Amino acid sequence: MVIGIDMMGGDYAPVQAVKGVKAFQERFPSTPLCLFGDESILLPLLHQEKISLEHITVVHAPEQIGMHEHPTKALKEKPNSSIAIGFGWLSKGKIDSFMSAGNTGAMLVGTHFSIKALEGVIRPTISTIIPKLDGGAALLLDVGLNADCKPELLNQFAIMGSVYARVMLGIENPSVGLINVGEEETKGNALAQATHPLLKENKQIRFIGNVEGRDVLTGKADVMVCDGFTGNIILKMAESLYDIARHQQLSNPYFDRFNFENYGGTPVLGVSKPVIIGHGISGEKAFLNMLCLAQDMTNKQVMEQMSLALAAQS
Amino acid sequence: MVIGIDMMGGDYAPVQAVKGVKAFQERFPSTPLCLFGDESILLPLLHQEKISLEHITVVHAPEQIGMHEHPTKALKEKPNSSIAIGFGWLSKGKIDSFMSAGNTGAMLVGTHFSIKALEGVIRPTISTIIPKLDGGAALLLDVGLNADCKPELLNQFAIMGSVYARVMLGIENPSVGLINVGEEETKGNALAQATHPLLKENKQIRFIGNVEGRDVLTGKADVMVCDGFTGNIILKMAESLYDIARHQQLSNPYFDRFNFENYGGTPVLGVSKPVIIGHGISGEKAFLNMLCLAQDMTNKQVMEQMSLALAAQS
Repeated sequence: MVIGIDMMGGDYAPVQAVKGVKAFQERFPSTPLCLFGDESILLPLLHQEKISLEHITVVHAPEQIGMHEHPTKALKEKPNSSIAIGFGWLSKGKIDSFMSAGNTGAMLVGTHFSIKALEGVIRPTISTIIPKLDGGAALLLDVGLNADCKPELLNQFAIMGSVYARVMLGIENPSVGLINVGEEETKGNALAQATHPLLKENKQIRFIGNVEGRDVLTGKADVMVCDGFTGNIILKMAESLYDIARHQQLSNPYFDRFNFENYGGTPVLGVSKPVIIGHGISGEKAFLNMLCLAQDMTNKQVMEQMSLALAAQS
Repeated sequence: MVIGIDMMGGDYAPVQAVKGVKAFQERFPSTPLCLFGDESILLPLLHQEKISLEHITVVHAPEQIGMHEHPTKALKEKPNSSIAIGFGWLSKGKIDSFMSAGNTGAMLVGTHFSIKALEGVIRPTISTIIPKLDGGAALLLDVGLNADCKPELLNQFAIMGSVYARVMLGIENPSVGLINVGEEETKGNALAQATHPLLKENKQIRFIGNVEGRDVLTGKADVMVCDGFTGNIILKMAESLYDIARHQQLSNPYFDRFNFENYGGTPVLGVSKPVIIGHGISGEKAFLNMLCLAQDMTNKQVMEQMSLALAAQS
């Protein structure tokens, strides 16, 4: 297993990316890493941090895709960027996973064009961890990849989310809730109303009904599904709680858990290999946790298990 | 001006409703109130609380609509319920506003059939107050009346919300934001993408662009517009912060402001007279604040001002 990482993506790259690599190496000294970025910048930093290059390959990528560049255009015009080269290596099987805290759009477009979706997946998705009030974590998806969704899509998110919750979060037989505006089956917008019966009939998941806005943070369901528009609003509102608690000078373990750095980044689900998209403001801890997540996803073969569950449903 | 109130609606009615009336009467002893409910229950309670009946009319309504009854059916089958009779009085002009903490659906159906929408209003809406982190309040709408929306609807919400923010919240020239998944104009689901240009061209509002989930609580915009599905999720998530802070034993002025009782209830906007829908778990403070809100809305003629703004836009 080789983990690939874009060292140039994100507001605090490459310095914080290098620190993340160092922290990861201290924990897992023999996991092979492949670092994509400008050699002339990276090598001195790696040297300075006294990082052993025994299990590290540095792949020179002289170009960078900026945070606000148009994804498709940037990938086409900058074939020597760290993201473009990284995806090239991923598609050729020279690395087993790839991650970046850089341009999210470029990461998604790169994923789309370089690796396959799992068989039967209509659209890949992205998820986020939502800390539960009484401990543990829930999974929310989609959080922005698919702003407009059809009911069949949400039904697949429920399956992929359930597998992820079981395999990666260690939740046995996770419960699934549909984000909705009321408890009754008939509640909701057209999408939620049409999705409810699909989830109810889906034998691959343990559906417990609707979850309302007030249930999102309290952990009524282990997996919460919704369209990417709603999910993105919830995600960013939840993330803001960490900053709000700090602004209010509250030191509170629950609100501290909303620090996105704890979770590293969000993996793209429904594709053949782990691709992890980090926050633009990722620091050392976030990079470390992204690397750990990639290693964990590969070791636990979460994608393969999703594939099996999706096949069983169809 | 006569304020009408359903004394039987809500989990803690009529006892808490009576206490709310008492508290209101202490502040505004000469404002005429009209109380709808079962006389045999209400009169002893009013007597017990030593409430003067000089400016109070008790209207006997022997039936009650339960919290989970089907709205249309219940209104038809229970013509002597407090909600049905209350709306009868409102439609006849015997009261100037009406409120209840009871069955929300029945309140909305009752509004629809008993009073007119303002001229030009495609669909009435409901809103909520979102406390801003640095003080003051923002208005979010729609929060559940219109789960599926068209762009024209959101454009009207922006106008109605701006008038409400100016007249009722005292915000001069309020800024309007579109709830969305990113800052760029082109971001969003189909609805948000189609709404953005309408808001941009709307001369009745001060549009400042998109607001993301992370901006909802920090007060980037004074008025935030979205479809009722998204808005309802945000509303209930925001409300849950009060309970979460209490659960975490945090005593914090900012999180305390999420106590819905501070705001009483949510007025239906875009109709000819104030109708206020309270929370099912309303207590004395919520009833008091609902009564104050109804009085304030009538005194400030907010509906008339909305009517003018809507006419100016069309």
